[in-house]
Amino acid sequence: MCGIVGIFGQDETIYNLLLSLYALQHRGQEGIGIAWEEGGKILSEKKLGLVSDFARKFARNISTSIAVGHIRYSTTGKSDLVNIQPIVLNGLDTKVAICHNGNLVNFFSLRKNLESNGSVFTTDMDTEVILHLIASAKGDIMSRLKFAVSRIKGAYSLVMMTPTELIAIRDPFGFRPLCLGKFKESYIVASETCALDIIGAEFIREIEAGEIVRISKDGIISEKFKDSQEKKQCVFELVYFARPDSNVFGVDVCQARKEFGRTLAREHPADADIVSPVPDSGLFAAMGFSEESKIPFSYGLVRSHYVGRTFIEPSSSERSSEIRIKLNPVKGIIKGKRVVLVDDSIVRGSTSKKIVKLLKEAGAKEVHLRISSPPFKFPCYYGIDTPSLSELIASSHSIEEIKNFLGCDSIGYLSVEGMLKSLGKFNSDMSKYFCVACFTGKYPVPPEDAEFIEQLRLFRNV
Amino acid sequence: MCGIVGIFGQDETIYNLLLSLYALQHRGQEGIGIAWEEGGKILSEKKLGLVSDFARKFARNISTSIAVGHIRYSTTGKSDLVNIQPIVLNGLDTKVAICHNGNLVNFFSLRKNLESNGSVFTTDMDTEVILHLIASAKGDIMSRLKFAVSRIKGAYSLVMMTPTELIAIRDPFGFRPLCLGKFKESYIVASETCALDIIGAEFIREIEAGEIVRISKDGIISEKFKDSQEKKQCVFELVYFARPDSNVFGVDVCQARKEFGRTLAREHPADADIVSPVPDSGLFAAMGFSEESKIPFSYGLVRSHYVGRTFIEPSSSERSSEIRIKLNPVKGIIKGKRVVLVDDSIVRGSTSKKIVKLLKEAGAKEVHLRISSPPFKFPCYYGIDTPSLSELIASSHSIEEIKNFLGCDSIGYLSVEGMLKSLGKFNSDMSKYFCVACFTGKYPVPPEDAEFIEQLRLFRNV
Amino acid sequence: MCGIVGIFGQDETIYNLLLSLYALQHRGQEGIGIAWEEGGKILSEKKLGLVSDFARKFARNISTSIAVGHIRYSTTGKSDLVNIQPIVLNGLDTKVAICHNGNLVNFFSLRKNLESNGSVFTTDMDTEVILHLIASAKGDIMSRLKFAVSRIKGAYSLVMMTPTELIAIRDPFGFRPLCLGKFKESYIVASETCALDIIGAEFIREIEAGEIVRISKDGIISEKFKDSQEKKQCVFELVYFARPDSNVFGVDVCQARKEFGRTLAREHPADADIVSPVPDSGLFAAMGFSEESKIPFSYGLVRSHYVGRTFIEPSSSERSSEIRIKLNPVKGIIKGKRVVLVDDSIVRGSTSKKIVKLLKEAGAKEVHLRISSPPFKFPCYYGIDTPSLSELIASSHSIEEIKNFLGCDSIGYLSVEGMLKSLGKFNSDMSKYFCVACFTGKYPVPPEDAEFIEQLRLFRNV
Amino acid sequence: MCGIVGIFGQDETIYNLLLSLYALQHRGQEGIGIAWEEGGKILSEKKLGLVSDFARKFARNISTSIAVGHIRYSTTGKSDLVNIQPIVLNGLDTKVAICHNGNLVNFFSLRKNLESNGSVFTTDMDTEVILHLIASAKGDIMSRLKFAVSRIKGAYSLVMMTPTELIAIRDPFGFRPLCLGKFKESYIVASETCALDIIGAEFIREIEAGEIVRISKDGIISEKFKDSQEKKQCVFELVYFARPDSNVFGVDVCQARKEFGRTLAREHPADADIVSPVPDSGLFAAMGFSEESKIPFSYGLVRSHYVGRTFIEPSSSERSSEIRIKLNPVKGIIKGKRVVLVDDSIVRGSTSKKIVKLLKEAGAKEVHLRISSPPFKFPCYYGIDTPSLSELIASSHSIEEIKNFLGCDSIGYLSVEGMLKSLGKFNSDMSKYFCVACFTGKYPVPPEDAEFIEQLRLFRNV
Repeated sequence: MCGIVGIFGQDETIYNLLLSLYALQHRGQEGIGIAWEEGGKILSEKKLGLVSDFARKFARNISTSIAVGHIRYSTTGKSDLVNIQPIVLNGLDTKVAICHNGNLVNFFSLRKNLESNGSVFTTDMDTEVILHLIASAKGDIMSRLKFAVSRIKGAYSLVMMTPTELIAIRDPFGFRPLCLGKFKESYIVASETCALDIIGAEFIREIEAGEIVRISKDGIISEKFKDSQEKKQCVFELVYFARPDSNVFGVDVCQARKEFGRTLAREHPADADIVSPVPDSGLFAAMGFSEESKIPFSYGLVRSHYVGRTFIEPSSSERSSEIRIKLNPVKGIIKGKRVVLVDDSIVRGSTSKKIVKLLKEAGAKEVHLRISSPPFKFPCYYGIDTPSLSELIASSHSIEEIKNFLGCDSIGYLSVEGMLKSLGKFNSDMSKYFCVACFTGKYPVPPEDAEFIEQLRLFRNV
Repeated sequence: MCGIVGIFGQDETIYNLLLSLYALQHRGQEGIGIAWEEGGKILSEKKLGLVSDFARKFARNISTSIAVGHIRYSTTGKSDLVNIQPIVLNGLDTKVAICHNGNLVNFFSLRKNLESNGSVFTTDMDTEVILHLIASAKGDIMSRLKFAVSRIKGAYSLVMMTPTELIAIRDPFGFRPLCLGKFKESYIVASETCALDIIGAEFIREIEAGEIVRISKDGIISEKFKDSQEKKQCVFELVYFARPDSNVFGVDVCQARKEFGRTLAREHPADADIVSPVPDSGLFAAMGFSEESKIPFSYGLVRSHYVGRTFIEPSSSERSSEIRIKLNPVKGIIKGKRVVLVDDSIVRGSTSKKIVKLLKEAGAKEVHLRISSPPFKFPCYYGIDTPSLSELIASSHSIEEIKNFLGCDSIGYLSVEGMLKSLGKFNSDMSKYFCVACFTGKYPVPPEDAEFIEQLRLFRNV
Repeated sequence: MCGIVGIFGQDETIYNLLLSLYALQHRGQEGIGIAWEEGGKILSEKKLGLVSDFARKFARNISTSIAVGHIRYSTTGKSDLVNIQPIVLNGLDTKVAICHNGNLVNFFSLRKNLESNGSVFTTDMDTEVILHLIASAKGDIMSRLKFAVSRIKGAYSLVMMTPTELIAIRDPFGFRPLCLGKFKESYIVASETCALDIIGAEFIREIEAGEIVRISKDGIISEKFKDSQEKKQCVFELVYFARPDSNVFGVDVCQARKEFGRTLAREHPADADIVSPVPDSGLFAAMGFSEESKIPFSYGLVRSHYVGRTFIEPSSSERSSEIRIKLNPVKGIIKGKRVVLVDDSIVRGSTSKKIVKLLKEAGAKEVHLRISSPPFKFPCYYGIDTPSLSELIASSHSIEEIKNFLGCDSIGYLSVEGMLKSLGKFNSDMSKYFCVACFTGKYPVPPEDAEFIEQLRLFRNV
Repeated sequence: MCGIVGIFGQDETIYNLLLSLYALQHRGQEGIGIAWEEGGKILSEKKLGLVSDFARKFARNISTSIAVGHIRYSTTGKSDLVNIQPIVLNGLDTKVAICHNGNLVNFFSLRKNLESNGSVFTTDMDTEVILHLIASAKGDIMSRLKFAVSRIKGAYSLVMMTPTELIAIRDPFGFRPLCLGKFKESYIVASETCALDIIGAEFIREIEAGEIVRISKDGIISEKFKDSQEKKQCVFELVYFARPDSNVFGVDVCQARKEFGRTLAREHPADADIVSPVPDSGLFAAMGFSEESKIPFSYGLVRSHYVGRTFIEPSSSERSSEIRIKLNPVKGIIKGKRVVLVDDSIVRGSTSKKIVKLLKEAGAKEVHLRISSPPFKFPCYYGIDTPSLSELIASSHSIEEIKNFLGCDSIGYLSVEGMLKSLGKFNSDMSKYFCVACFTGKYPVPPEDAEFIEQLRLFRNV
């Protein structure tokens, strides 16, 4: 995953951009990059690390009215400045910077084709093909953009800039979120509304699927480059990725999570004394579960405030497990209790196993694990960084096997139907408009290249 | 405030010490220092910053069996390495390192007297008088320690070491917590039990008020240097300072806070739709308030995971207030609601005022502020870093004036009686054994020196 | 200026590369970049700063047999990682890294043309056109290289690599030096022989003007891509740029400088007591001047060992001028003496003026300035970073005016004829084969683009 | 060795102090510390590293009129901030900061005695006893200073400050240099005159042996605390330690070195083609040798400008020896020549051996090593950091053995008599006033403590 922001501002543009990126830090911790207009050119700066590290060194004195920024997710691959966005095209004529959230499913064949015509790629990112498509097209920026989006397939929320315009584009399926806000005379586009809130901007609307929005001193121009397609928004944003205080795809994220928790309580009730979240991922689902089940909500695990950066490699001895550094069970609350432990998802299962063990060691009589999403069985091709199939515990194990592996007394996953029905509560149509391929394996846009899946882990930009 | 730890260990002593200090990071973010035995001498290292910064650079390869460490609170005064503990006496004969949590009320006259006899002080810390008293005494280490504690007055939980012993001392009133734990053949003393949990140590007991505990390879020796005095434990540890998953003064901190919340709900009920904590300080009190009042608990404010270090100075414009960087109101939960907002205390009132404003702007119909401790009116002389009287809003304003200043619709503080009665639930005698001077102005150990109060801000070690 | 190195090695390739770059540090202090083969790809790393800063963090553990590196000169423009070489083309098929010393006089029109065909430039460097020419050509690497060198004009010593070959190219005029060395079974190409000496490599020969040398595990292949042209080697390398212990263009640099000093003494004798160099730039010319004139050589100025990095901005007061931090006159040697002060060149004149003043203040009776090169009047288009015409003091002032500006008692520049005749001493033909355009304005390869001269300062890679 | 500076200034006191310390950087590279008056207290800051590293982070904005600073030599022992000076006594009444160059020969017994009376030592430095003696004395600062100097024995040039005075003290033998300068209305005391030159201060006189100089806003007060003793100034300052552009003990250092070189040429003539210095240590002696012998002076070895910090550990292979990184022989000058190689001293002999080898490999026909000081046979007790006896090659080997070890064709050391006679040239009396114990073993002040010699390496402050 990544977070993207663009601001067309009157003053303090860089300051506001950095604040907004800071609000999106949960979408990526590997690196941050920003680009801005200065003297008719587009300059940029990139760093590995968190926004807070970056901002101290940087950018206080730049005065500009257009800027874009990108937060990159920490992946298992090699961290490298060259793979931090924005990517900038500083041609003698055409100048553009691109920030991308998503994943192109046909970038490999596009790159091959472009290289055979002499294009020089300088990164491993799928995003770079968009830059080359723009450079190799003819005409004004709008013609070039349309040429580029007519070639690429897959998931792309884009925030771009030229020296005079801020541009926002969302793919025809709307896989990834992108919203538009306004503050005073300035505009902001960002992955989530929490990036608007932090600078006091008002949420106007989402960028629509298949829409190009261009913001300049002449105002806002919108154009649909593709229409009437069924949206396929990523339900995992609501389950896990987005911040609970954001409104994404028209839904308050924390309310969606509470609703998942309520449905989960109906689908998989438990005979227990307390409901405790895995902090902070299971918090709102646990509150919903508690409300529906009437089992009291309590914090059985406390999370260290200072986690975010692990500082010390775990010792060789097993005694001080890494999870202990992040979470501490509260014995006075846990001891002798039957605990419903609520989390949002299980990927590999190793962390959940450790948490169950922590609770049992702290004296929990029973641990009933409840997961507020369906079993995660299939890789995402649209921007969620997923491990290989063999590492996804649910793709190769039955529910019963998972329960035994984790050592809990019972386990319950939210069903796909329950999940979509929960969302129907907010808007009756909504349940149709979500991509649930990671649970069902039914991909709205199948990967085109044979090489794509194979290369996904090497060339991903998620 | 500060956090202190000492370990007498078999292996990985420094690793365990750093983990324990990490668990106590909430007790101070300004600096960290550690000392350890090496080749019969006591070596030490000190840094400004967080444990996590420190540990990466340091200490992986030191092999020792005795080590002590200290976490220093960020005060308004000048940050300086020289004021980071431990303080080390590396005399040709006597060698000792001292970590101190608390504040000595007669250190000024002690220092004056020592200096007139030729003692050279190298720090501003009250703790240093203990070192000089030990150095100027005669006899073995026990005689020297007894001489020192017979002279000093005030609050002191001490973790000390010689090249062969780990020593723990708690003042006769037991103002500050200090507990003893065991893991395998090793021992740990620490400010709070969460420092024991993180390394998998078992909590044995608290160090008693007026007790000296010495741990060496010959085992544990305990001696009371003063007895039969009424304990005066700092209630503010339970209200605010200690981690919720710690057990302090015999009470589970999170349970104490819940109980404060329940009593508060009875003392100051509110007609409202939701109870929301100020995260994370008001969390458990808000849960208690909700349980007692039956008003649903909900998270109306979300806290950024990445706060801990502010990274960017607030802009000149008022729009993006600093509080916005840390907390974001969840409009979907707040809008149109009557909110009970629960926090643990009010010091200056400026932060509370901003939070109330945030909620109102997010659409809250009413904001009823409930504080799970009494009005904070008097400075602490025993180790809590308090601002000057004129800055403590409750010392110069009536409850009504505070309400008007904060802009909330109603306000309610827990009463001193209610607070002590809540603690009585855990142990009927307990309500007698707490220092509540910051609420009442009745000081168990009055400051002896005329200069003390005046100098408190310059020479404090809190 | 820049320094370039490439190694095709058996072991410790990166270690030797860094040592060689360190020996070339005088050719550029702004930044350093290296590239190497790893797993069939070309990886690279770049840093702003000195080699010594870089090496500590880096590269100890990389095992590779081909690597190239580049040292970048500090220019007045914006320092930026993106403008640090090597430039790397990591195409799916074609992979190459390029290090360039020199300046292309037609890069602007080449870039324009390439961009109009869709090429995406990511740097401001003229070197990048070479990369795009290679990418857009067809056939094997040799065909692509020949296509590229058939298009570019100007000065270029190139060290390049593919995953299997080390490649060295020198332009048909041989403006910049490039030499070939061997150690054990390994080969090295580098700007100067001092980079060979430091790793114990034996100097084999210079890369010839118009030659492409390819080194692989199959041995060395050489091909002339252009022949029978008159060489135009940069005489300023001998005057100023190269290290005195290097052999460049077939001449020992320190010997050439001594010879310049001898000729200078004949052309501009002085009635004086001592000859003193401006350390270290005038050292060998001063020794030659002393030998020829029989006036005793003495160090009238001492240079701080620790200069290299200025550490403190000069104060507002004039008292402590910046030059004072670098040079200190030795009063005991200077006082009451008539001094011949020898330096290699005068650019703006401001430093020379300060040094003359230092000597006078230290008691020198007379200061006779002698410069071991002709007046520097015209900008260099082939890789020496020169200020604008208006800043070159000799381009707008007569010798008499310069003398008055500097405040010296007499001044004498080496003549162009004297300079070339001095070089004739080493090889009778040699005097024909040098570019002296910066003294005469007669450019061997005139800039082709109207924009070139204008853009020189923006897009230079010198 | 160390360098010390104190300034009593009107403006830019810290800026001037840092410049002066920078000029003394050759006297120590391990660390730097400064102290200054601020609000009636003495504040200080210390860093490991060079002045240039330090100054960038620090001290631009401090406004004060009294400041002292210290440069610490890199010793083989553990680098530790705690052993960086100044040492500061910030008593409630008495406040003083001390910078010390030298070594006390009775500090061990003084420390023992002070500790038994309760004094707390916080460093390993002998200098700290001075602080405790001052603290334990009675009366005004002058009485305290006199008490302290009446107790200590050995070598001490001291620069001290109180909140109102700058104080300079030199021991009765005057082992270490210390000079007084004036600029505008301000005063400076420093180890060498180069520290005066860099800030444009005028050299007034040396602080005399046995003198206390106090500078305040009331002017300068001088008092001799011990008189009529024979001075024993360290001749090694002139041979090696001081900067060539300094005037030390009334002699221009570079002139003294030239004179040593001339005498050496008479004592140990050589039949050779060129005289080459080991740069830069042998420079002036080589020039003197050349003048006297009429053998031409030439630079056979070139030193890298960028050395100062070694950046890369030498590889395992012998090929690239560490010396190669620092020095490069100039083949064109060396080849086929009989070389007189001049250096100032030989300590262990390992570096000289490598240099001889370098010259031979570069083609030198013969290498005649000439050393401008006598064989270094005995440890210094007065502040020069010397290795143990067993490491001093001259203490255990005959001249012939040394010649064979180094691999040179002949070797010649300056005689003690020749050295002193050379100095007699500047002032006929002068030859009596030097300590030459490191050559003769005759110590002017024998170490008093049995422990001293043993402890020298542990507790030294040189």
